[in-house]
Amino acid sequence: MRIEILCTGDEVLTGKIVNTNFSYMAQKLEDVGLSVHWGTTVGDDRESLLAAFKLAGERADAVIVNGGLGPTVDDLSQEIAAQAAGVELVLHEEWLEKMESFFTRRARTMPPNNRKQAMLPATAEMIDNPVGTACGFAMDIGKARFFFTPGVPRELRKMLEEQVIPRMLARSGAPASIHLKRFHSYGIGESHADQLLTGIEDLDPEGGVKLGFRAHYPQLETKLTVRGTDMNDVHRKLAPIAAEVKQRLGNFIIAEDDQTLEGVVLAALLAKQATLAVVETFTAGQIAARIAHLPTAEHVFRRGAVVRHFSELHNVFGLKSVALAGEMTEEATIAVAKAAREQTGASHALAVLIELDEGSDRIDLGGTIWIGIASPEGVDFRRSRILGGREWVRLGAVELGLDCLRRQLQGLPVVERIDFEKT
Amino acid sequence: MRIEILCTGDEVLTGKIVNTNFSYMAQKLEDVGLSVHWGTTVGDDRESLLAAFKLAGERADAVIVNGGLGPTVDDLSQEIAAQAAGVELVLHEEWLEKMESFFTRRARTMPPNNRKQAMLPATAEMIDNPVGTACGFAMDIGKARFFFTPGVPRELRKMLEEQVIPRMLARSGAPASIHLKRFHSYGIGESHADQLLTGIEDLDPEGGVKLGFRAHYPQLETKLTVRGTDMNDVHRKLAPIAAEVKQRLGNFIIAEDDQTLEGVVLAALLAKQATLAVVETFTAGQIAARIAHLPTAEHVFRRGAVVRHFSELHNVFGLKSVALAGEMTEEATIAVAKAAREQTGASHALAVLIELDEGSDRIDLGGTIWIGIASPEGVDFRRSRILGGREWVRLGAVELGLDCLRRQLQGLPVVERIDFEKT
Repeated sequence: MRIEILCTGDEVLTGKIVNTNFSYMAQKLEDVGLSVHWGTTVGDDRESLLAAFKLAGERADAVIVNGGLGPTVDDLSQEIAAQAAGVELVLHEEWLEKMESFFTRRARTMPPNNRKQAMLPATAEMIDNPVGTACGFAMDIGKARFFFTPGVPRELRKMLEEQVIPRMLARSGAPASIHLKRFHSYGIGESHADQLLTGIEDLDPEGGVKLGFRAHYPQLETKLTVRGTDMNDVHRKLAPIAAEVKQRLGNFIIAEDDQTLEGVVLAALLAKQATLAVVETFTAGQIAARIAHLPTAEHVFRRGAVVRHFSELHNVFGLKSVALAGEMTEEATIAVAKAAREQTGASHALAVLIELDEGSDRIDLGGTIWIGIASPEGVDFRRSRILGGREWVRLGAVELGLDCLRRQLQGLPVVERIDFEKT
Repeated sequence: MRIEILCTGDEVLTGKIVNTNFSYMAQKLEDVGLSVHWGTTVGDDRESLLAAFKLAGERADAVIVNGGLGPTVDDLSQEIAAQAAGVELVLHEEWLEKMESFFTRRARTMPPNNRKQAMLPATAEMIDNPVGTACGFAMDIGKARFFFTPGVPRELRKMLEEQVIPRMLARSGAPASIHLKRFHSYGIGESHADQLLTGIEDLDPEGGVKLGFRAHYPQLETKLTVRGTDMNDVHRKLAPIAAEVKQRLGNFIIAEDDQTLEGVVLAALLAKQATLAVVETFTAGQIAARIAHLPTAEHVFRRGAVVRHFSELHNVFGLKSVALAGEMTEEATIAVAKAAREQTGASHALAVLIELDEGSDRIDLGGTIWIGIASPEGVDFRRSRILGGREWVRLGAVELGLDCLRRQLQGLPVVERIDFEKT
C-alpha cells in the first residue's frame, strides 16, 4: 500500500513550529509495518491544498491529511476536500450535537463559527475525536482513501492510533494483529547493537518479526515489530525473540516499552522504601531534574546538591578528612557519597563529580566522571571518561550516573564497559 | 519568487529523525522576507527523487534540496539531479583536491567512496562547504534554480546563510540588505504583545519593517525584519522602531538577538563580581541546570540545593527560627533566601519554593510559587500562581525565578504582573 502524509498550515510551512506530527505519524505507521512513501507540506492556501490533494490522490492508495479542521477561516481542509472530490459540504447533525454538548459540559456556549467544524463532504465517513471539536473523516479523492486528522498533537495521536491505523491496516490486508515491543538501552551504540542482534529476526521462521533501531544519544531504542493472526499468535512469536534480545543486550537494557530510566530508578527506590540524595557538579542539577519532579518522587527524593568546584563540597558536607581541593580521587568520591548519605539521612546517595578538560568547547573536549554510590549494601565506585564537547559530556554523565544507580538497585555490576567511554 | 523545499532521506521520511532542517530553512527564509510555498519529503529512492525534482522544477522558481550528498550508495542527489536535467555527471577536480586535503589535515586517508562526492552534474555551479566533504551546488531543472545542500545541520546552516540565501535574494530582486532584530520577552502572551505593538510597522513610512512573533512557552520572540538599500539604510529604519519596541515591551524584554535569559543573568552576576546560590523544590534542579553548566558559570555559581519537602529546608539550612512544616509564608521564603546567602557565602541567593496542588495531573492543576532573593541590596519577595498542569507549572516557575533574578540584578521591579499568572 502506497501511503502519503500531507501536512497543512502556515505555522508548519513557515517553520514557526517544528513538524513533529509528521515524524510521529511516520513512526507509528512504521511500527505497524506500514511505510510512508511521500510527504507534502502546504500552507492554508486554497490553490496549494487543491493541487496537493489531487496529486496525492493520483499517486497514493492512502493519504493522511493533518491540520485544517479548526473553526477559523484559514482552516480549509473540509472545503477543499469536497472541491477535490467534486461533492458538496453537508451539515453533520450528529457532530454538531456532539460539539454543543462538548461546550455545555464545560459550561460554555458554542461560538457560531464552530458550526463550520460539522460541515463535512457529502461522501465522508465521520471519524470520532473524543478529545476535541475537530471532526475527523475519511473519503476517496482520486484513487486514494484520504484520512483527515486534527493538527493538535493530542487529538491527532488518539485518532491515529485508535481510528486511522486500524482502518489502514484493514485496507492493506495486513495480518489482524501487530504489536511493537521496545527495549531502551544505554551504553551500546546502534551499529554495535545491530551486530549483537544479528540473525534475531530468523528465530521466527515465519518471518513475522522485524527488528529496528532509533538512536537518541545517550539512549538507544531497539524495536521488534511482530505480526500475527491474533494477539496469541503475536505473543507466541515474540516470547522467544524478546527473551533472546534480553539475553544479548543483557545489563544494558535500562527500560522497556513506555518505561524510562528515571522511572525505573524511582520505582526500584519506592519498592525498597528507599530515599535518595544526589550530589552533582557539571551536570548542574540535571540528574535531580530527571527524577525529583516525578509523581511519587516526593516520597523518595531527600536532597540534591549542586556545586561547580570540588572545594565547595567541603562546605556542603563538612568533609575535613579528605583533600578535595586538587584532583579528584576514588577515595574522595566515596567520601562524598558516604557523607551525602549520612548527612541527609537518605538510604542511597549518588555522587557524580566531573573534571572537565580545560579550554574552549570543541569536538574532542572531554570530561572525567567520578561516580560514587553509598547505600545500605556498601559503596560502589566507577570512573569513566567521555569525549565529544561540553554538551555531549554533560548528557552522557547524567545518563551514566542514573544508570549506575539503576544497576546498583537491580544488583547488577555498576562497572561494565560502555561504547561511549574512552577509558 | 515561488520557493519550494525538498527534503530527502529515509531517516526523515520514516520519522526516525524529526525534520528540524525544514523549519530551520523556512524560518531563515522568512527572516529575510522570502516565503516557502511548498514542502516535499521523499526517501532515498530513485523514482521518488526524480518525480519530486521534476514536479518542483515545473512549479517553483527556486528549490532548496536538503540531503543526499554523502558518500554512500543511498546518497542519490547528484545522480538524480543530472538525470532530471538531462546532463552527465562530471568529476569536479577542485572539490576532489579539497576533500583530499580535508582528510590529510585530519591525518586520515580519504576512503575511495568519498570520490563520489566530487561528481557533480555538468551544468552545476559549485557551492562551497567549508565544514564538510559534501559539496553544495546550484543548477537549473525545469524552470527553477535548484540549490543542493547537505543534510548535516551544521553544514546546512553555514551553507544556507552564507551561500544560498544571498544567491536567492539576488535572484528575487529584493533590496540588497536585510537584517533581523529579535527581542525575547517573558510574561507577555503573543496576542497581548501583538496588541501592545499595534501600528509599529507604520513608524517606517517606506514599509521596510515587518513585525513577527514566535511563541515558545514560557518565552516569546518578537522579530523585526528590516529591508534597506544597504546596512546604513537598514539601521536608520530600525533604530526608531527598535526603540519603540523596547519602550512598549519594557521590563518584559529579557534578552535580545542571540542572548538567552540565563546568559543575561550570568553576565550581570559576572559584571558585579557576584556569586549565586539557588534553592529549589518542584523545579527539581532545573533552575541550576539552566545556568550552572555555562562557560564562566564556574566563577559565579556557588551552590544549588534541591528538596521536595519544605521541612527538609530545616536540615539544609538549619532554619530553626521559622516554621516550615506547614504552609509556606512570605516570612519563611525570605528566611530561606537569607539563610542560603549567609551559609553559602554567595552574594545573591534565589529561592523558588512551590506548593503544588493536590491530586493527579490535569489541565487546571496549579502551583503557588514563592520566590525570595537575598542580595547585598536587601531582600525581594514575590508570590505567584500558575495553572496548567505539572509541566506547565514547572516550566513557568523556572522562567519566573530566573526572570525575578534578572530584574533584581538590573534594578527593575521584581513584582510586575505577567499574563501567565492567576493571582
